[in-house]
Amino acid sequence: MATAGKVIKCKAAVAWEPNKPLVIEEVEVAPPQANEIRFKVVATAVCHSDLYHLFESMPKDGFPAVLGHEAAGIVESVGPGVTEFQPGDKVIPIFLSQCKECRFCKSPKTNQSLVGAESRFTCKGKKVLQFAGTSTFSEYTVINQIAVAKIDPAAPLEKVCLIGCGICTGYGAAVNTAKVEPGSTCAVFGLGAVGLAAVMGCKAAGAKRIIAVDLNPDKAEKAKVLGATDFVNPKDHNKPIHEVLAGMTNGGVDYSVECVGNVEVMRSAFESCMPAWGVSVIVGWTELNDVAIRPTHLISGRTWKGSLFGGDKNMTIICPTLYSNFKLQLDEFITHNMTLDQVNDAIELMKHSKWYHFLVLFIY
Amino acid sequence: MATAGKVIKCKAAVAWEPNKPLVIEEVEVAPPQANEIRFKVVATAVCHSDLYHLFESMPKDGFPAVLGHEAAGIVESVGPGVTEFQPGDKVIPIFLSQCKECRFCKSPKTNQSLVGAESRFTCKGKKVLQFAGTSTFSEYTVINQIAVAKIDPAAPLEKVCLIGCGICTGYGAAVNTAKVEPGSTCAVFGLGAVGLAAVMGCKAAGAKRIIAVDLNPDKAEKAKVLGATDFVNPKDHNKPIHEVLAGMTNGGVDYSVECVGNVEVMRSAFESCMPAWGVSVIVGWTELNDVAIRPTHLISGRTWKGSLFGGDKNMTIICPTLYSNFKLQLDEFITHNMTLDQVNDAIELMKHSKWYHFLVLFIY
Repeated sequence: MATAGKVIKCKAAVAWEPNKPLVIEEVEVAPPQANEIRFKVVATAVCHSDLYHLFESMPKDGFPAVLGHEAAGIVESVGPGVTEFQPGDKVIPIFLSQCKECRFCKSPKTNQSLVGAESRFTCKGKKVLQFAGTSTFSEYTVINQIAVAKIDPAAPLEKVCLIGCGICTGYGAAVNTAKVEPGSTCAVFGLGAVGLAAVMGCKAAGAKRIIAVDLNPDKAEKAKVLGATDFVNPKDHNKPIHEVLAGMTNGGVDYSVECVGNVEVMRSAFESCMPAWGVSVIVGWTELNDVAIRPTHLISGRTWKGSLFGGDKNMTIICPTLYSNFKLQLDEFITHNMTLDQVNDAIELMKHSKWYHFLVLFIY
Repeated sequence: MATAGKVIKCKAAVAWEPNKPLVIEEVEVAPPQANEIRFKVVATAVCHSDLYHLFESMPKDGFPAVLGHEAAGIVESVGPGVTEFQPGDKVIPIFLSQCKECRFCKSPKTNQSLVGAESRFTCKGKKVLQFAGTSTFSEYTVINQIAVAKIDPAAPLEKVCLIGCGICTGYGAAVNTAKVEPGSTCAVFGLGAVGLAAVMGCKAAGAKRIIAVDLNPDKAEKAKVLGATDFVNPKDHNKPIHEVLAGMTNGGVDYSVECVGNVEVMRSAFESCMPAWGVSVIVGWTELNDVAIRPTHLISGRTWKGSLFGGDKNMTIICPTLYSNFKLQLDEFITHNMTLDQVNDAIELMKHSKWYHFLVLFIY
């Protein structure tokens, strides 16, 4: 490739400071170093985690940065030591990657790792940080090879980019973390991309009943397309939602998955599951409040877990077996197609849209 | 037996009303009905659950009653349909028994059951309720055969009575609910009988490090006899106990077991376990307060569970394999020997003693 080994100048959306619009800038993307891959980002979605960094957590040492992490692209060049990737490969970046050497990677019990990442971006003479080890709001980005999954050459990148975060997170929470069993009864709270993916995961795991819960009735139809058997809107009931679900399911669901990031919903999801054996999984992220429960609601036999990126190491379950076989109904998740220049519009849409999370931003 | 088929008049401690001393009365114990067993209570311990009924939960429809549930005895007579027990058998009553027919009994995921129990006690012409399906603060009691475990004829009843609640509860929480693995690191919070039994369970499961946590330094020695490798007194540290334990264990313990029934301790035990894979189990009972945690402390990878009666159906793990082999160090648990006439002294001792739970009340 003509660009291999050279700095690439390209367009990127730079978050110069917290709580401000992103700025489309020309950035320099250095060539990949040892074990790194530089790839052209073909499609990237906006995820709430990007907004969380920009508007909520706003870490002091987190700016300037290039946000974006839910993407797909094509390898442009590889650094020394990279043997399993070559230019032209289609890839998805993995924001929660595995070094395969630390005690976390060596444990089958977690998908966390001590791996770090270094930015290859500069802009106007300044180093620009890499967000989530990926930074996909840029036409090109550089990632360590351990944080990249090679995908089927036939994959439609503008759809499979969603696997890089939301789909894995929700689907994996049901399949890997909750370990939904065939014939079981499930409830999914919150029908953003993560929740809809959780519905899909429950269906794939063989659940016989999947109750989708959301305040927005417009979401019912899409949830049912993806596998929900019932839709419950808490606004339609004058008693707590866990009582509604207990009534529908002879005492509670076997599995519940919270995909909102609201502590009251987390409690409802927990209380909605069967006292004697229900498993409830928190997927929605918040650091702002505690969540409270009755201790006896655990002692009775419930299990409470959390799930990060679907509990999956390197998307090993979802990536090869599902997406390559096109079993994932990704079309349902896409509500808007936009360009990188429209990134701030996309962010505003996500902030205010009832179809939270559901848009794909095309890079070109 | 001369008494078979007849009403037995004997001594029992009757709880006539909540928050009052028990009264030693002569009660009538009717003969066992179909599928029931009447047995002579040889030894019974006082457990905090007895006190909880009397002084804390005080249910309106829970009096008068005969308390007591942690006991051992000898079968006096059996009702029609009982074929697996005969007079002279040594038995332990099981307060959480299995009907083997309901959906709870048919599920391997819980030790709960829809089984009910009927009292055969009367006193002064009044029906006296059966507590916890057992009522062992009486010289004789009647229990359905499904709520009785036959034990080794050589078993010392004045010791093995403890298996009927505290030992199973703590030991099983470690072995069955937490599923402590060989080589793992554990912490047990609260060193009453349940906590000490949890220490014993961790040891039996092969834990390489067992950190016993209690505010009372006098408990360190007993905990170490039963398997604890470390003793930590939160009073000796000026930082939160979960930080102390994280420092001792490179980030947190693999398993923590809460045996106090205090929501702050429950939170500490939860936070003391390894963020990426720690399992925390609540055993201590309280209905008075909520317990709160940070959602991200679950999302990171922890699992939170509760355990009731050791998560064991009919004491199947602990009873035949352990106790018959005398692998349980029960002597360590016994601090007082008293008589039924001293039941109120025993209750006061338990209420105020730093050796909470540690006494055995002999019926004769």
